[in-house]
Amino acid sequence: MEKRETVEVVRTELILRSDTNHYGTIFGGKTLAMMDMTGALAAMRFSNENVVTASFESIDFKKPIREGDIVEVVARVIYTSKSSLVVKTDVYKYQNQQFHSEKEFTCGGFATFVAVDMDGKTHPIPQLKVETDDEKKLWKVGEKIKNNAMERAKS
Amino acid sequence: MEKRETVEVVRTELILRSDTNHYGTIFGGKTLAMMDMTGALAAMRFSNENVVTASFESIDFKKPIREGDIVEVVARVIYTSKSSLVVKTDVYKYQNQQFHSEKEFTCGGFATFVAVDMDGKTHPIPQLKVETDDEKKLWKVGEKIKNNAMERAKS
Amino acid sequence: MEKRETVEVVRTELILRSDTNHYGTIFGGKTLAMMDMTGALAAMRFSNENVVTASFESIDFKKPIREGDIVEVVARVIYTSKSSLVVKTDVYKYQNQQFHSEKEFTCGGFATFVAVDMDGKTHPIPQLKVETDDEKKLWKVGEKIKNNAMERAKS
Amino acid sequence: MEKRETVEVVRTELILRSDTNHYGTIFGGKTLAMMDMTGALAAMRFSNENVVTASFESIDFKKPIREGDIVEVVARVIYTSKSSLVVKTDVYKYQNQQFHSEKEFTCGGFATFVAVDMDGKTHPIPQLKVETDDEKKLWKVGEKIKNNAMERAKS
Amino acid sequence: MEKRETVEVVRTELILRSDTNHYGTIFGGKTLAMMDMTGALAAMRFSNENVVTASFESIDFKKPIREGDIVEVVARVIYTSKSSLVVKTDVYKYQNQQFHSEKEFTCGGFATFVAVDMDGKTHPIPQLKVETDDEKKLWKVGEKIKNNAMERAKS
Amino acid sequence: MEKRETVEVVRTELILRSDTNHYGTIFGGKTLAMMDMTGALAAMRFSNENVVTASFESIDFKKPIREGDIVEVVARVIYTSKSSLVVKTDVYKYQNQQFHSEKEFTCGGFATFVAVDMDGKTHPIPQLKVETDDEKKLWKVGEKIKNNAMERAKS
Repeated sequence: MEKRETVEVVRTELILRSDTNHYGTIFGGKTLAMMDMTGALAAMRFSNENVVTASFESIDFKKPIREGDIVEVVARVIYTSKSSLVVKTDVYKYQNQQFHSEKEFTCGGFATFVAVDMDGKTHPIPQLKVETDDEKKLWKVGEKIKNNAMERAKS
Repeated sequence: MEKRETVEVVRTELILRSDTNHYGTIFGGKTLAMMDMTGALAAMRFSNENVVTASFESIDFKKPIREGDIVEVVARVIYTSKSSLVVKTDVYKYQNQQFHSEKEFTCGGFATFVAVDMDGKTHPIPQLKVETDDEKKLWKVGEKIKNNAMERAKS
Repeated sequence: MEKRETVEVVRTELILRSDTNHYGTIFGGKTLAMMDMTGALAAMRFSNENVVTASFESIDFKKPIREGDIVEVVARVIYTSKSSLVVKTDVYKYQNQQFHSEKEFTCGGFATFVAVDMDGKTHPIPQLKVETDDEKKLWKVGEKIKNNAMERAKS
Repeated sequence: MEKRETVEVVRTELILRSDTNHYGTIFGGKTLAMMDMTGALAAMRFSNENVVTASFESIDFKKPIREGDIVEVVARVIYTSKSSLVVKTDVYKYQNQQFHSEKEFTCGGFATFVAVDMDGKTHPIPQLKVETDDEKKLWKVGEKIKNNAMERAKS
Repeated sequence: MEKRETVEVVRTELILRSDTNHYGTIFGGKTLAMMDMTGALAAMRFSNENVVTASFESIDFKKPIREGDIVEVVARVIYTSKSSLVVKTDVYKYQNQQFHSEKEFTCGGFATFVAVDMDGKTHPIPQLKVETDDEKKLWKVGEKIKNNAMERAKS
Repeated sequence: MEKRETVEVVRTELILRSDTNHYGTIFGGKTLAMMDMTGALAAMRFSNENVVTASFESIDFKKPIREGDIVEVVARVIYTSKSSLVVKTDVYKYQNQQFHSEKEFTCGGFATFVAVDMDGKTHPIPQLKVETDDEKKLWKVGEKIKNNAMERAKS
């Protein structure tokens, strides 16, 4: 299989009333759904295959997101095995709801996707090219995520 | 602080068209949103406080969920620290979309919630009573989830 | 046909912004949709068949439900005829939006469902076992609901 | 109080995928929500006040509504008392999903609304002018709906 | 082809929280979606065919629409060619959120729809009867809309 | 006022079941809502102000978008006046629902946004830097869009 450069998908979202609870802060589930969708798009763009979510790991919510916030969801493929991909997905928000302010990290974690065909069977995918130090470091993180999932599957 | 029996919240859901992609299988994000909401309800019922999602960990999707499936989301408080709670959340579906068939496990994992007051400050919560062997075993699992999150916070 | 114990389905819901109007109170239609869905799940669980809504009767809204309220929708099969079921559906809310406060009755009424097969034809269902005084009293209520609907059908 | 002519509100709706279950037929709850919204608009237009839903009665679903159907929801004020209004709400669909085909009755029933001010207190409303035979007949139907609700309130 | 009287479709909508941003004013996209849906219903009712949106032109937003506003969307067929229809679509709101107040114009413009069959091929439609001065004036406006679209298509 | 480089916002979207009609093609209103949201984000990012939609012009739908399609919405600020911005917004889709296939143009047009403060009053904005031939050509297009809107406002 050919080796491919990683892909990164960025989605900008305006947080709406219907995304938030009566305290005006976002539902955890809404953030998770944005991370899943952006991660899946990165996995699809990298593999050129349809994918399903296999696991979600180490998702930490660091700062609250509120109605009116502008957030950026950044998803990047960091690891591949035969038919699965680990995607690092981070969520940033612009301070004071202004685009020209600094971005701050609000939430991040890792999702694993599996490429499947029409019948839901796993499908081999192209492998990730890993060259720079940064890419190698992220590959190790992804490998650990994958190994953790495999260990949980055994028990 | 008083010690309290655990609470378990069960939600039955019928999976709708708008919950699924064009292959007829549920969006990962929809499952995560159901797990977050049910987990939050369990944390609120146990603590009698408002809570926010702090982390999501070791979420494994084992079987596909499809349009028309009837699923049960089961959330149980398994660990408490000063103001946070670890909730085990599992998703089952009835085979062949029939209520009298056997339930099968489709997805499960752990969410941590933090009790907060109106200004978003953390708030102390009642502690979990742990007596049976099963409760002790789950407490250890929850403790590990909590420790993992604290280690990630340091790095 | 075998006689079966009744089933009761309980769904806990957190009332969201998007469920309420600009006065902060729930749309009647949202409450009705929760009652219909929970009632249908009770009818499906009892009959193990797919069901459609046939009628809705004597739905009284007694207390307002607001954004942030935690409500419990309780649906119980109280009467069966050849292929239809009457389900009593009540909606409670926790006072002051706190799970440990008392529950109060907010809304209740009766829905009739009909079991149908894939082509939309009615399908016979198991009959309800009625033994206790409470069950007998509810059966009479359900019978009256059914008779009212049949009379309306004639006119 | 001044006496006013009745008002009728008509809403045309195209039934969408997200309104229907996996058999392609509309959720009962969706139909009820359309009836509640159209009924509330009729009550608001008649009374020029904000209203809340007080009860729903004798709702009969006669024909299935499917994805792609064009339906007309027709709501008409038929009875008024000091601060409440009874609204007859009927749902029609165009056969074969074509606007020039005949309309057929699919579902109908009665909703009672109460006019309230900002604090949720009931508010007096203008009374309905009743002159033709048709208006008198409908007034009697509305009166019975109102009396039934009052009897249920006592028990 | 037979000539037909124009049709006008009116839809009354209550603007909900989930339709508005965190300033309480409606999303432009929500207004456009209401205009597209009402316009499509007018085009379908006139032609008795399924239609798709071909273009949207000269949509001007004149007054803000807010949560709680009652709006009327009025769509009228003003021009027809072989298989397309130009629909004038205007949005009014009742002042002070009261039905008995004056209506004011908030937004208006023109949409062009094309009649298509099941395979997405264009389909001939009945032609519009144009007799009064008002109808002739609107026809000219529609003709210009159509010509503008054709010029854009060439370039 | 300082002159600024243009900004371009790109949003990738997976078209879902609930975005499409029963023929499986997207609602015009859904496409318009995506264009409005992406255009507003570009206008906000450029001006660092809150904006409202003022007009939509020359929106042409060239190719159908279907369930499962992956689309890219590209919004670019092309013209500024004292407090308004013209944004060119184009929608592309990947052929055969595959990310590595060619992108094709499906729909495009122009939106005008106005910067407003909290009270809804217009607010001056930074002006667009126009240097390359491409930028000058687009500026002329934007200027014409603006002039057309002003002419319509007079009549």
